[in-house]
Amino acid sequence: MSKLNSVNPSNQALINGQPSNSLSVFDRGLAYGDGVFRTLAVENGVPNHWPLQYQKLANDCRALQINCPSQALLLEDISLLFGMNEHAVAKIIITRGESVRGYSYSADIMPNRILIKSSLPQYPASNSLNGVKLHLCELRLSHQPKLAGIKHLNRLENVLARQEWSDATIAEGILLDVDGSVIEGTMSNVFARFGNILLSPDLSQCGVSGLARERIINNAHVLNLEAKVQKLSLDRLMRADEIIICNSLFGTWQAIDFNGKKWSKQLLSEKLSALLQQKELNHV
Amino acid sequence: MSKLNSVNPSNQALINGQPSNSLSVFDRGLAYGDGVFRTLAVENGVPNHWPLQYQKLANDCRALQINCPSQALLLEDISLLFGMNEHAVAKIIITRGESVRGYSYSADIMPNRILIKSSLPQYPASNSLNGVKLHLCELRLSHQPKLAGIKHLNRLENVLARQEWSDATIAEGILLDVDGSVIEGTMSNVFARFGNILLSPDLSQCGVSGLARERIINNAHVLNLEAKVQKLSLDRLMRADEIIICNSLFGTWQAIDFNGKKWSKQLLSEKLSALLQQKELNHV
Repeated sequence: MSKLNSVNPSNQALINGQPSNSLSVFDRGLAYGDGVFRTLAVENGVPNHWPLQYQKLANDCRALQINCPSQALLLEDISLLFGMNEHAVAKIIITRGESVRGYSYSADIMPNRILIKSSLPQYPASNSLNGVKLHLCELRLSHQPKLAGIKHLNRLENVLARQEWSDATIAEGILLDVDGSVIEGTMSNVFARFGNILLSPDLSQCGVSGLARERIINNAHVLNLEAKVQKLSLDRLMRADEIIICNSLFGTWQAIDFNGKKWSKQLLSEKLSALLQQKELNHV
Repeated sequence: MSKLNSVNPSNQALINGQPSNSLSVFDRGLAYGDGVFRTLAVENGVPNHWPLQYQKLANDCRALQINCPSQALLLEDISLLFGMNEHAVAKIIITRGESVRGYSYSADIMPNRILIKSSLPQYPASNSLNGVKLHLCELRLSHQPKLAGIKHLNRLENVLARQEWSDATIAEGILLDVDGSVIEGTMSNVFARFGNILLSPDLSQCGVSGLARERIINNAHVLNLEAKVQKLSLDRLMRADEIIICNSLFGTWQAIDFNGKKWSKQLLSEKLSALLQQKELNHV
């Protein structure tokens, strides 16, 4: 597997605003995955789409009854860790805080906020230009409506799914749920275009609702597309005019090779990537 | 909620054999819950039922393709952290190791081993003497056969389930799965006795297979009970002659109050607790 992601000294972190690369072993993020995260680009000191990212972070914290730190604190952290001439990736992790053994916790538990800086991922230019090859994952996502949509720290399903391929020409794996419905990629969301309908899978039972997905859904009309969120079977996905995957770091890529079928490269992914780069878009 | 589990200075830890209470923020245990754990009592420097605990740890690591540290290393850690005149709890966490962003990892990734010492839990004596009240959890466990049975670090379902009650007279919550089958407690396994049949729920779709559960299943015949592992509906559980919960720290407790029904206290839980305290038992 790639060594690109091995830890090197240029990776830096703040914990609760203090420079530190180490977290208490009593943190419930480690013990139980009891926390949430966001991943976003920071350009010249400015976190991309910050109000929307913070809104999702706060919503995810609320769903788990974690006290979300204020925007002001998180923005101060970002200004401390990211230089004004730097383009890099911020990962924000909010854990419930520290406790010793046991799933219960004190009412006055204090969350830990962790900010990690890493370099922008270096994806092959051909991913955007020519499209990508996708793997159909064998692992099926389980249904847990109480956690569905939340970007929480329980990501073993994603880890196991990512173990399924080592072929570097495969850019991403597509995950189905236990019922065989298409849900998402291991690190991305999925769209299927049928004519002028842009369909994204329903995530009420499982999956993570990324910001790029939501921004595309809310702004597809700009490209004369009608966005719909529906259950999506694999059979139906295979009949799509185009399959597009997205996340906040790479924008969008079109699938040209998936599950034994090939698609010719079209132009929607470029248009959607351009749309995602606009700073001011509708967000309902 | 209880403050018993707030962190205090007497909690101590080793990371990879070195005294330390802090772990790298790049550890995948934090990022993804990418690791496994065991919890066991250590008496006078001797970890209880060590060969069986290590076997389960190694099996769980293998299921996730994590390199499990050797028994010798872990036993050395325990001898460093636990005094010869001490009765305390060891929590062993093995994470896949460190990486930065991304679900993939280097083939040469090195696991981190964390050993945490905490004091023995102080449960009310009446739990054993008179039995306990149980809560029926609203949260339903999701089905994920690739993770079922494994004591991994993705425990948000347990955290959410434990949030459902704050009444200190409730000792544990019983979890059903998405199909309504009885699976386990939030921190324990469940048995239902029907005559001389001792039934434990099937854990092939979800749940954690604790060591106490397995030792009871493998040795129930000593008490003239026939152990069976089967799907168990809530209706059937409610008709049990006795409901018993177990884990490696408290042994066994009988339920006397659950889901609107009361049971008189019987003697099986004492017999099973005594059985669990025996050092040499069959383990098939």
